[in-house]
Amino acid sequence: MNILEIIEKKRDNKKLTKKEIEYFIKQYTKGKIPDYQVAALIMTIYINGMDEEETANMTLAMASSGEVLDLSELGIVVDKHSTGGVGDKITLILMPIMAALGVNVAKMSGRSLGFTGGTADKLEAVPGYNINLSIDEFKENVKKIGISLITQTGNLAPADKKIYALRDAISCTSSIPLIASSIMSKKIAAGANKIVLDVTCGNGAFMKNITDAKELAIQMNKIGKLANKETICVITNMNEPLGYAVGNNLEIIEAVNSLKGQMPKDVGEVVLELGAYMLKLAGKGENIEENKNKIQETIKSLKAFHKFVELVENQGGDITYIENTIKFPKAKYEIEILSKKSGYIKEINAEEIGKLASKLGAGRIKKEDKIDYTAGVVLNKKVGDIVKAKEKLATLYTNKKQYEKAKEELERIIKISDEVVEKEKTILEIIE
Amino acid sequence: MNILEIIEKKRDNKKLTKKEIEYFIKQYTKGKIPDYQVAALIMTIYINGMDEEETANMTLAMASSGEVLDLSELGIVVDKHSTGGVGDKITLILMPIMAALGVNVAKMSGRSLGFTGGTADKLEAVPGYNINLSIDEFKENVKKIGISLITQTGNLAPADKKIYALRDAISCTSSIPLIASSIMSKKIAAGANKIVLDVTCGNGAFMKNITDAKELAIQMNKIGKLANKETICVITNMNEPLGYAVGNNLEIIEAVNSLKGQMPKDVGEVVLELGAYMLKLAGKGENIEENKNKIQETIKSLKAFHKFVELVENQGGDITYIENTIKFPKAKYEIEILSKKSGYIKEINAEEIGKLASKLGAGRIKKEDKIDYTAGVVLNKKVGDIVKAKEKLATLYTNKKQYEKAKEELERIIKISDEVVEKEKTILEIIE
Repeated sequence: MNILEIIEKKRDNKKLTKKEIEYFIKQYTKGKIPDYQVAALIMTIYINGMDEEETANMTLAMASSGEVLDLSELGIVVDKHSTGGVGDKITLILMPIMAALGVNVAKMSGRSLGFTGGTADKLEAVPGYNINLSIDEFKENVKKIGISLITQTGNLAPADKKIYALRDAISCTSSIPLIASSIMSKKIAAGANKIVLDVTCGNGAFMKNITDAKELAIQMNKIGKLANKETICVITNMNEPLGYAVGNNLEIIEAVNSLKGQMPKDVGEVVLELGAYMLKLAGKGENIEENKNKIQETIKSLKAFHKFVELVENQGGDITYIENTIKFPKAKYEIEILSKKSGYIKEINAEEIGKLASKLGAGRIKKEDKIDYTAGVVLNKKVGDIVKAKEKLATLYTNKKQYEKAKEELERIIKISDEVVEKEKTILEIIE
Repeated sequence: MNILEIIEKKRDNKKLTKKEIEYFIKQYTKGKIPDYQVAALIMTIYINGMDEEETANMTLAMASSGEVLDLSELGIVVDKHSTGGVGDKITLILMPIMAALGVNVAKMSGRSLGFTGGTADKLEAVPGYNINLSIDEFKENVKKIGISLITQTGNLAPADKKIYALRDAISCTSSIPLIASSIMSKKIAAGANKIVLDVTCGNGAFMKNITDAKELAIQMNKIGKLANKETICVITNMNEPLGYAVGNNLEIIEAVNSLKGQMPKDVGEVVLELGAYMLKLAGKGENIEENKNKIQETIKSLKAFHKFVELVENQGGDITYIENTIKFPKAKYEIEILSKKSGYIKEINAEEIGKLASKLGAGRIKKEDKIDYTAGVVLNKKVGDIVKAKEKLATLYTNKKQYEKAKEELERIIKISDEVVEKEKTILEIIE
């Protein structure tokens, strides 16, 4: 077997065998195949695709290319993952709820999701919170208080890391089999036995339409089945930002408020849906509606909020910030955007809000960039809302002097119609 | 403009502009774009193709990526190029004929054509022949005796060299737009004003069928037109080796014999056809049949043979080898293959004969390999010939002890039928 034969096969749109996929992943991880050959192969995969079997084989080969965590001593661990979006603070709200309901939470989160910081960045916005724990400390924390949220650690799925970086450098990110295998290889290596996936769909997500989102969901479910990890996908709308806040501090504050009961409607729907299925997978209840009720009670009783406080305290964070979010530092410039006319909010393009927040300082362009935790956008309106002339549409937070242009851009992004606008659905489909 | 946008466009099967192609060729030649990005782009071109305009733009960009020879002081120079085959000694016979007929010959030849040595290797088999001349010496020789054959020199089409090596390493050689642009960029940089191309077609050639060969020919003609270099393509059969000899010394001997009038029928057909069109392009006669007569007279009068002797002498070669080819060293082992039965020769697969000759020592596997000039195969029969049991089919020449396997292989390659076999046509099509 050699790499040229493998390239030729996929170039000619033929199916790769398990052995061929394992060979190329293993040899590439070892540095025995040069980047240019793998770049050519990845492009053949991008253009000609891979079927479910090939995708599953690639996932398993990448998952076992490095360390594979063994969390069996923790019993059932349900992992949750989102394919990325703007204003996505679901992990921060949902995981304490799960822990409060007795589901073990051992979750690693990424540092950046393109536009704004990732969950790991948002947690680091809490002074003192230690995101970098060893695997042993991580497990100990879960045993002690039922929850630990850390950043990715160890040598998990190194093949995925190499291939992901290469895909980025050759315009091969938006391929369903490559996205599916990348996500699932990390989840499998991270050791959970059950997985709930939030497959985002819309202009602010990788998957721009429901057809692609469903295909991705189906592929990931099949991989889960083959890897013996029960997987459920919830397809959610990402045409406008999730909730009102976009930016690190700003989202932490919205998450805390949500756990205190002040939850934006769309955030609530996603939390309930994902949570209900997580409870089901954890063996805590077959009935989805009953599960949703349990979640609502847990929020109302403040048990979930207290679990979040416990998590922050246990990982060294300053809980006075959580108890009183006014303590979080504020950006130097705080600019209110007022509506120029009355009408109905027609569109708040999630992708454009994400890019704008990133420009204000909330995201990274290069890996080394430092995030400004205080920067971002807080919306006052959601799509479908009524707005009056001179009413506040949003507030823009930044430490950069050049905010005037951002203000104009935000005015352009938030589109207002004279006619009534119907709200879009938040939960688009469940793929079990 | 950036390379990612260019990759994305061709990935999505869109047409690249002249500026985009020039940008990527220029930046890659300068080393400013990494191999892995160009590998991905070349794969998109392989899979999605390029139209005539894109191919012409790529050719011109590669041609002007380095030095471009100016041969204008020599007047009309007609270049000749073959897309490669087994037993192809046409340049050695045809170019002295052209020079004898008053057409300036200033030709650079490659060192290796995959299976066996290239024309440059064959010329080096003549002791003393200096294949490495400077461009000035090259031009002086043409002015003095009307002919010079040297190996590729200078910094001609460096972009093609880089891309060719990359294509080889990512299984992207057999693409018509990439082959067409590679050949034509070198021809354009080499400075000829008129070009006759021998487009080989069959199992021993890059183009396996007439449809592909015609497409390649049409593309190259169009590029020639755009580059203001009048181009004619002759599509020739490469299902069996050309002539009887395959191997460096062995082919020089067959070429010399051909110039003395003992020319294998198929070799003669190719020489006459290509030569007649070269004369036409050189302005030496519009009528193809009359041109063929002139060529035959030039051979008969031994003028072409004497021109070859003059060429060899002028470039320092020992002409006693040409005058008396028995002086060429012989391989240690000389094994005759006899027919096991009577019948008609049905098939002598050119590709397999080429590979076998290479194994015997006549070719290179790696660039650094040394060629054994004495090694190779001399056939005694051509497809369609009658053969009797125990009659000689071929002789195998090698210095390698392990020739027993080669003998068996040769017996397998030469297929004999009980029924009459019709000879295939040598000249398949002319694309003007």
